[in-house]
Amino acid sequence: MSIPLKRMDAGVDATSECCTLDAAPLGADDAGRVAKKLKALADPTRLRLLSHVAAQGCDAVCACDLVDVLDISQPTISHHMKKLVEAGLLTREQRGKWAHYTVTRDAFDELRRFLDLR
Amino acid sequence: MSIPLKRMDAGVDATSECCTLDAAPLGADDAGRVAKKLKALADPTRLRLLSHVAAQGCDAVCACDLVDVLDISQPTISHHMKKLVEAGLLTREQRGKWAHYTVTRDAFDELRRFLDLR
Repeated sequence: MSIPLKRMDAGVDATSECCTLDAAPLGADDAGRVAKKLKALADPTRLRLLSHVAAQGCDAVCACDLVDVLDISQPTISHHMKKLVEAGLLTREQRGKWAHYTVTRDAFDELRRFLDLR
Repeated sequence: MSIPLKRMDAGVDATSECCTLDAAPLGADDAGRVAKKLKALADPTRLRLLSHVAAQGCDAVCACDLVDVLDISQPTISHHMKKLVEAGLLTREQRGKWAHYTVTRDAFDELRRFLDLR
């Protein structure tokens, strides 16, 4: 049987069980930046495209491979990928005929920190 | 000087350095559900309201306190809080005249898992 040494007062919930979003309430500038990224993510097709890029590991993924995977047209894929690149969630590199995409890990770090309820 | 024992082939990046979003590419149903939550979050005012509720710990937060904090009108707050409740991100409880809100931690667990790039 273990004794919860850090709980000094049984009448107060342990802070580790409580909720916080990041360290403090979000300011207007931070809220605007996070909302812009979330808006780009808030679409089922974009979420699926992004998850396919991320699931390939660190390698860049060719737009040509995404056509087969999701069974949607190339123009539709280009439209959605552009939104993700503009939001800083993906980086785009042209290689010959095809664009190649990789996930921007820093952008997700910020989102994850914000959503890190404890 | 340390030797990277797990790197068996110098031509292949160590998998621990690679990106994945959740375990596998997202299916259509999961993408729809996650997108709905992200859409509710993708607004600067809603993010700020949510962060204020979460920053109060596990206790329910009265809508009356949110008016003072963000300097926006009660009807505007009600509109935004309704969107967050509908998306399952907050729960609402009426206590006398005022609604009280708490964060739904399970909903954030799912979002965080999705955004957990490794």
